[in-house]
Amino acid sequence: MTELSLVAALAKRLPRIGDDCAVIRHGGEDLLFTTDLLVEDVHFRRTERSAPDIGYRALARSLSDIAAMGGDPRWATVAVALPPWATERWVAAFYRGLLGIATRDRTEIVGGDFSRAPVLMVDVMVCGTVPKGRALRRNGARPGDAIYVSGPLGRSKWRFVPRLALGRLLRTYHATSCMDLSDGLSLDLHRLALASGVSAELDHIPIARRATLDGALHRGEDYELLFTLPPQTKPPRGVYRIGEIAPGFAGRVTYNGVLVTPDGHDHFRSQPHSRTP
Amino acid sequence: MTELSLVAALAKRLPRIGDDCAVIRHGGEDLLFTTDLLVEDVHFRRTERSAPDIGYRALARSLSDIAAMGGDPRWATVAVALPPWATERWVAAFYRGLLGIATRDRTEIVGGDFSRAPVLMVDVMVCGTVPKGRALRRNGARPGDAIYVSGPLGRSKWRFVPRLALGRLLRTYHATSCMDLSDGLSLDLHRLALASGVSAELDHIPIARRATLDGALHRGEDYELLFTLPPQTKPPRGVYRIGEIAPGFAGRVTYNGVLVTPDGHDHFRSQPHSRTP
Repeated sequence: MTELSLVAALAKRLPRIGDDCAVIRHGGEDLLFTTDLLVEDVHFRRTERSAPDIGYRALARSLSDIAAMGGDPRWATVAVALPPWATERWVAAFYRGLLGIATRDRTEIVGGDFSRAPVLMVDVMVCGTVPKGRALRRNGARPGDAIYVSGPLGRSKWRFVPRLALGRLLRTYHATSCMDLSDGLSLDLHRLALASGVSAELDHIPIARRATLDGALHRGEDYELLFTLPPQTKPPRGVYRIGEIAPGFAGRVTYNGVLVTPDGHDHFRSQPHSRTP
Repeated sequence: MTELSLVAALAKRLPRIGDDCAVIRHGGEDLLFTTDLLVEDVHFRRTERSAPDIGYRALARSLSDIAAMGGDPRWATVAVALPPWATERWVAAFYRGLLGIATRDRTEIVGGDFSRAPVLMVDVMVCGTVPKGRALRRNGARPGDAIYVSGPLGRSKWRFVPRLALGRLLRTYHATSCMDLSDGLSLDLHRLALASGVSAELDHIPIARRATLDGALHRGEDYELLFTLPPQTKPPRGVYRIGEIAPGFAGRVTYNGVLVTPDGHDHFRSQPHSRTP
């Protein structure tokens, strides 16, 4: 059972799931909802990560989903299941990391829950806002659109900076689609192309220093933004043009004419580079 | 480290925490946020609970928090960490239970996340709405107010029905305070009295069939509403008057003149009847 098959089975019943966040029309704005789990021995090993680093990343991943929709993060809830090794001092350091990024990115922690558990598990829900009807979606890419990423790929950074400013800016550029790269370019671009009913033709992939082309294509957790702009639109500064949207073959991704299989990271199985259906 | 000491340490930094939900002014209404963890071997044993029962209760607990504020539940996110024993069939049954109560209580599941984990853990966040400034709080009980509960106490029911209709009704009765009984009357009434800066004098406790006075006072997870009404207000039908608010000794609870110690259920330690500071 992979994450994809679970999500696919549920999506039939839960029509809002499909973008990085659910978009809810409410009052004068749209509300965005997203939630992300961080689990010991699945997403990290405690011997390798400090308490503030875990707190930082637990919130950063949900903020990246808000960025991908072009939204402003507003309120968050934090549920923490604590194992026996987590001392009160550890918990304080965890919250220091979490509140640091919350303050920087103007997200108010409005609630939470605690429990015991055999391993550390953190669930962070973030609710954001976006002007009515202006959320960036995955399903609007059109043939001829240029494909961009916000940075070089293949070297994931634990304390990445969610691309909130760029996400907001892309609304004014009338980006036709956008998502964050959490599972690797090959899998995430496949998803974007599938949602838009188009194919994607890559011709240039910016590779991070000390990373490989394979890493840039298939390694997850870059947390850069992947987006498309209309053909004539001049992109914002500092982003990388990686290819072009083409008609037909919904979901197909090629790189210089060669088929790229969606081999990204499936957190449910937690085997980087595992084959996903 | 108890849940109370953790919450107390965090409350200094997170001023919204203290009621059953955070109350956020936004647009024409107030938003309510609450999140609740359900963890295997802390809140339940899998051999004793069916998948639909676990799904039902995971959402019901957060809905009870919305009821306690007099709100309408609107949107929920569901994060599930699945252990090896949870088959796809089990997950489908879990969602059947969860979607059953979601449909009944008009709550839309708008997002979620999955992960692996050694034990089952579910975190459900519910966002609700309430007319501006009308949320029921813990801190408004005044000397002379009558204290009520919405049902007999001491026999917790796994598939309890969140008191959403009563919560909404209590807004029109101008209830001076309200909360849900999730940790036992003695501890929860102590919290309500402390938040309001008053003491509480109990004189009648409705005991559920086959329950004891000790259970009714100290057993957690009744999920009835505990609330106060002004002295002259005739209460809604079907509720039980259990005592009266008195001045001074903030947080003190007595039953027929005898001091009641707050001995409710602390989910963090998960020892029912454990002494809490």
